[in-house]
Amino acid sequence: MKNLSPLQEERLKYQPKLPASLAGGISNLVAKEGSATESVANQAEIKELFQNTYGKPTITFASSNESNTIEARNVGVILSGGQAPGGHNVIAGLYDAIKQSNPNSKLYGFLGGPSGIIDGKYVEFTDEFINDYRNTGGFDIIGSGRTKLETEEQFQKSLAVCQKLGITAVVIIGGDDSNTNAALLAEWFVKNNTGIQVIGCPKTIDGDLKNEQIEISFGFDTATKTYAELIGNIERDANSAKKYWHFIKIMGRSASHVALEAALQSQPNITLISEEVETKSMSLASVIDYMVDIIVRRADMGKNFGIAVIPEGLIEFIPEMKSMIANLNDIMAELENDSVFVNASTIREKFEIVENRLSADNAKVYNSLPALIKTQLLADRDPHGNVQVSKIETEKLLIEMISTRLDELKSEGKYIGKFNAQAHFFGYEGRCAFPSNFDADYCYSLGYNAFALISFGLTGYLSSVRNLTEPASKWIAGGVPLTMMMNMERRHGEMKPVIKKALVELDGPVFKKLEANREDWAMNDRYLFAGAIQYFGPSSVCDITTVTLQLEQASKLLNV
Amino acid sequence: MKNLSPLQEERLKYQPKLPASLAGGISNLVAKEGSATESVANQAEIKELFQNTYGKPTITFASSNESNTIEARNVGVILSGGQAPGGHNVIAGLYDAIKQSNPNSKLYGFLGGPSGIIDGKYVEFTDEFINDYRNTGGFDIIGSGRTKLETEEQFQKSLAVCQKLGITAVVIIGGDDSNTNAALLAEWFVKNNTGIQVIGCPKTIDGDLKNEQIEISFGFDTATKTYAELIGNIERDANSAKKYWHFIKIMGRSASHVALEAALQSQPNITLISEEVETKSMSLASVIDYMVDIIVRRADMGKNFGIAVIPEGLIEFIPEMKSMIANLNDIMAELENDSVFVNASTIREKFEIVENRLSADNAKVYNSLPALIKTQLLADRDPHGNVQVSKIETEKLLIEMISTRLDELKSEGKYIGKFNAQAHFFGYEGRCAFPSNFDADYCYSLGYNAFALISFGLTGYLSSVRNLTEPASKWIAGGVPLTMMMNMERRHGEMKPVIKKALVELDGPVFKKLEANREDWAMNDRYLFAGAIQYFGPSSVCDITTVTLQLEQASKLLNV
Repeated sequence: MKNLSPLQEERLKYQPKLPASLAGGISNLVAKEGSATESVANQAEIKELFQNTYGKPTITFASSNESNTIEARNVGVILSGGQAPGGHNVIAGLYDAIKQSNPNSKLYGFLGGPSGIIDGKYVEFTDEFINDYRNTGGFDIIGSGRTKLETEEQFQKSLAVCQKLGITAVVIIGGDDSNTNAALLAEWFVKNNTGIQVIGCPKTIDGDLKNEQIEISFGFDTATKTYAELIGNIERDANSAKKYWHFIKIMGRSASHVALEAALQSQPNITLISEEVETKSMSLASVIDYMVDIIVRRADMGKNFGIAVIPEGLIEFIPEMKSMIANLNDIMAELENDSVFVNASTIREKFEIVENRLSADNAKVYNSLPALIKTQLLADRDPHGNVQVSKIETEKLLIEMISTRLDELKSEGKYIGKFNAQAHFFGYEGRCAFPSNFDADYCYSLGYNAFALISFGLTGYLSSVRNLTEPASKWIAGGVPLTMMMNMERRHGEMKPVIKKALVELDGPVFKKLEANREDWAMNDRYLFAGAIQYFGPSSVCDITTVTLQLEQASKLLNV
Repeated sequence: MKNLSPLQEERLKYQPKLPASLAGGISNLVAKEGSATESVANQAEIKELFQNTYGKPTITFASSNESNTIEARNVGVILSGGQAPGGHNVIAGLYDAIKQSNPNSKLYGFLGGPSGIIDGKYVEFTDEFINDYRNTGGFDIIGSGRTKLETEEQFQKSLAVCQKLGITAVVIIGGDDSNTNAALLAEWFVKNNTGIQVIGCPKTIDGDLKNEQIEISFGFDTATKTYAELIGNIERDANSAKKYWHFIKIMGRSASHVALEAALQSQPNITLISEEVETKSMSLASVIDYMVDIIVRRADMGKNFGIAVIPEGLIEFIPEMKSMIANLNDIMAELENDSVFVNASTIREKFEIVENRLSADNAKVYNSLPALIKTQLLADRDPHGNVQVSKIETEKLLIEMISTRLDELKSEGKYIGKFNAQAHFFGYEGRCAFPSNFDADYCYSLGYNAFALISFGLTGYLSSVRNLTEPASKWIAGGVPLTMMMNMERRHGEMKPVIKKALVELDGPVFKKLEANREDWAMNDRYLFAGAIQYFGPSSVCDITTVTLQLEQASKLLNV
C-alpha cells in the first residue's frame, strides 16, 4: 500500500540534473588523468600501507565523440553511518548509470550498512523499487549502519559475498571514517588480486569531509537549510514576543561547519564555534563571560531577548572540559565497581566521591558545573567506557551558568534585565529532509559518476563533482584517490591511516564572515528568515547554494 | 538597511487571494443579515452582560452592482497574545481595504499588544512600511502582548487614545481570550456612546477558536504543517537508523488539535490526545501501559524504534495529575515560606516534606514520578503561585517511566528489545513561519473583511471567512457576533462571560480518523513525509488544507 504525501508524489517526478560531461552517458566519456598525487601528510607511511592504490592521478571526465561498449557488471552499494539527505539519489544515479550503460548489469544494495556486505544481506535493485525513493530523504531504502569494515576477517567475508553475487565493484557512501575503510578495502582487494574495485562517495551533513577536490559533502546543503529555517522561525518569534533568549544547539560534534553555516543563513545574536574556543584555549568561564556581556549590553538597550547558536561538540573543545572529561572517563571505570560509589544514597555523595578522585584542576571544573550536568556526566558510559558527550545538554549548561552569573551582576547593580531562556537541539530534524534541488542533483551526479569511475577500471577513488557554485551543466566530474586525503592519526592508542577531517578554519573566508559581522549581529537584530526549503519556483530561492560553499569557492578563485 | 532572505524577497511579491465577494472592493458590497443569534449557552446571563451587542444577526457579504461611497475613517489594530503565522497579512488586508476605499483613511497599529491602546503607543501604517511585511511570519510589525483589556480604567484610557487619534474602529487580532475582551470593549464603547466599533479576527495556532461560523483560526495551517515537516523528517530518520524511539511534544496546552493534526499529516506510531485521556479518566500508569504495550509489541517484531507524538498539555488532563498539581499549588504557597523546606540541604528532603503535606492519594502520584519531574514541579511558580506546567518536560517524564517499566518487563522475560529514546519539543519553530499560501490568503481576507464589517457600521463581530476547503474565490465572507460564541465559565473563582474553547471532540471525524488507524500506524510504519511547506509549484502541494479542516467540512456536508 503506497502512502505518499503530496510533496513526495511530486518529488518522485523530479529529474535530477547531471554535469554536461556525464549527460551523454557513460559510454561517451574520456577520462583525463592529472599528475600523480601524494597524501596530505605522512606520505611515506601512507604509501607503505597502500602500496597498490597510493599515488594515483586525479581523474576528470569529458564527453567524447567515440562511443565505448560497456560490459555488463554487477555492482554493490553500501550506505554507511549517519543519515544525510540525498543518499537515495546517489543510489538512483548509480543505478541509472549502470542500467543505461548495459541493461544486463545489476546493482545490489547491502542491507543495514557495512554489516550487509559481511553477512551477505542484500537486495537487488529494480526500476520499480528504486523509483519510489527518487529525490526523497532518508537511508531507509536499504538502511545504514556503523559497523567498521577494517579487519582481515571482514574483508574475507566481503570477498566471499561479492564472489557469490558476481560483484566486481563496490560503492561505499559514507563520511571520513567510512571512506577510510573504503580505501583499506580497495587496497586489500587489489593486493589479493580479487578484481573488485571500490569507489567512495562523500556523505555527511557535518561538512567536514572536504578538500581541494571535494568542495562539500552531500547532505550539508539540505541539513543546514533545514536548521536555518528553524532558527529563522525562532528568531522571528523572539523578535515578536521580545521575552526569551533561545539557546539553539546544532548537531555536529567534531566540527562546527553546520552551526556556522546555519548561523550565516540566519544571523543570530551569538554564534559559538568550537574550533575558535579550542584555538583560543577559552575556559568555560570565558565562554560564559562572552555570552553574558552580550546579554547585558542588549538588556541595557531594553532587549531582553536574543538567539544563541551553539555547536553540539562545544564542551569537548573547551580545553579544561576536555581534560576533566578524560580524567572522569579514567576514574569512572574504577568507580563503577566501587560499592561506596554505587550504593551512595544521594547524588551529592556521588559528586563528592568524584571530586575527591579527580585531579585538583579537574575537580574545580567539575565542581563549577550545575547539578544537572554533573549528573549527566556520571550517567551511562558508551561501550568504550567514555562519557556520552552527545547526552550532555550543553545548551542547558550554558543557560544555567549564565543565569547564575546574571543574578550576581544584578545584585551588583550591573545588570538590569530579565533572563528567560528556552533550550532547543536540532539534528534529527535535518538529516532526512527531502534533499534540496542542489543535493538532489549533486547526489545523483555523484552516484552516476561513481559508475563512470568503475567503468574506467579505477579503484580507491572518491567520486568527485566540482565547480558546484555554477549551474549543474558546468559541474566537473571525476575522481580523487582516497589516499590523497589521508594522514596518520592516533586512534585508540594506535597510529592509523585516516582521511583528514576538515575543521572550521579560523583564517578561512567562512569564519571571517562571521567574525566581521559578529558585533553588529549581536547588538542589532539582523535576523535573516530563510524559511522552508523550496523545490519549485524562482531559481533565486530554489537553486541557492550554502554560504560556506559560495565563500570558499569565491576565495579559491581569488587565490588562483 | 534591508536584509532579506531570497524566499522573503519573493514572498513580498505574492498577491494574496480574496473571496470573489470582496474582490470588487468594499464599496461594491451588500451585507445580508441572517436571523438573530443566541450565545452557545447561558443566554440570559450573556444577554444581561451585553445589552447593546447581544443577539445581532450573522452577516454575509455579496458583491453589488451599486457602488457606495466610503467615508474616510481612522482605524486602529492590535495583535494580541501568542504569535501565529499570517498576522502580518491580516494587517495588510485591513490596510489595503481601508486605503482602497478611501485614500484619506488611516490605519494605526498599537504597539506591543493591548497595552499599546491603553498607553497610547502606536505607529501609523504607510505603503512603504507595510510592504516589507507582506506574506511574512511573526508579529514583529507592531509586536504583541498579553495584557488583558477588561477593566473600566483600561477602557477609559483606550477611549481617550482613540479620541485623540480620531479612531472610530478597532480591530483586535487574537485568540479566544482576546476576542472575549474585544466583545467587552465593543459593548462598553456602545454603552458609552463613543461611536467606536470593535471587530475581532480569529487567531491562534492552537485551533481551539472555531465553531459553525469560524471553520478554523488562522496560523493553525502553517504551524501544523511545520510540525508535520519535522515529525516526518524524524520518522524517516528513525526508520533509517532503526535505533531510537523519538518522543515529540507538540505545543498546545489547553487542546490537542495541533498534535492531532500534525499526527494525521505524519502518521506516527503513537499519538496521545489530552481530551481522550481526560474523558477516559486515564491514570499516568495507564498512559504508560498503553505506550509500553506498543513498544513491546514492536520490539517483538524486531522494531526497536518508533515515533510518539504528545500534546504539551497532557499532564494537566490526567485527572490524578491535575489533582496532585492543584494540591501542590496550595501547599507550595506555604512551603515557600517554610524555613525547614527552604533550607533543606538535599532535594530528597524537599521531596519528603512535600509528600508528607500532600493528601495520601496525591502523595502517591507525586512519589511515582522520576526525580527530574519531582524537581521541576517544585521549581519557580508563575505569578499566580501555580506550577509552570509548560516547564514540565512531559516527554522526558514518559521516557523515564517507560524505561523503568521496560526494565521490569525485561527482568520478567516479557520484553526482549532495546529502548533508546530522544526527546523533542516543537512549538516556537512553527508560530512565526512564513504563512502557507492558505494562511496568507485567509489572513489577508480576514483583514480585508474586517474593514467590510466596519464600513457597514457593525461592532462586536468576529471577521468570518468560510467555505475554506474551496478555492479562495468561493470563500464566503461575513461576520459573526462575538456574543454568539460565549458562555459563562469560572475564572479565578468568578463566573465570567468567555468565548467557549473548542476542544478535540472524541466523536468528531478528526479524532475518529486517528482512532480508526491507530493500531495500524502503531505496528506498521505508515509514516507520511510531508516535507517543507511549499509556496510555489504544483497546486496539489501548495494549496492543500489541513486534514482537520477537510474532515470537519466534509462531515458538515454529510450532516446537512
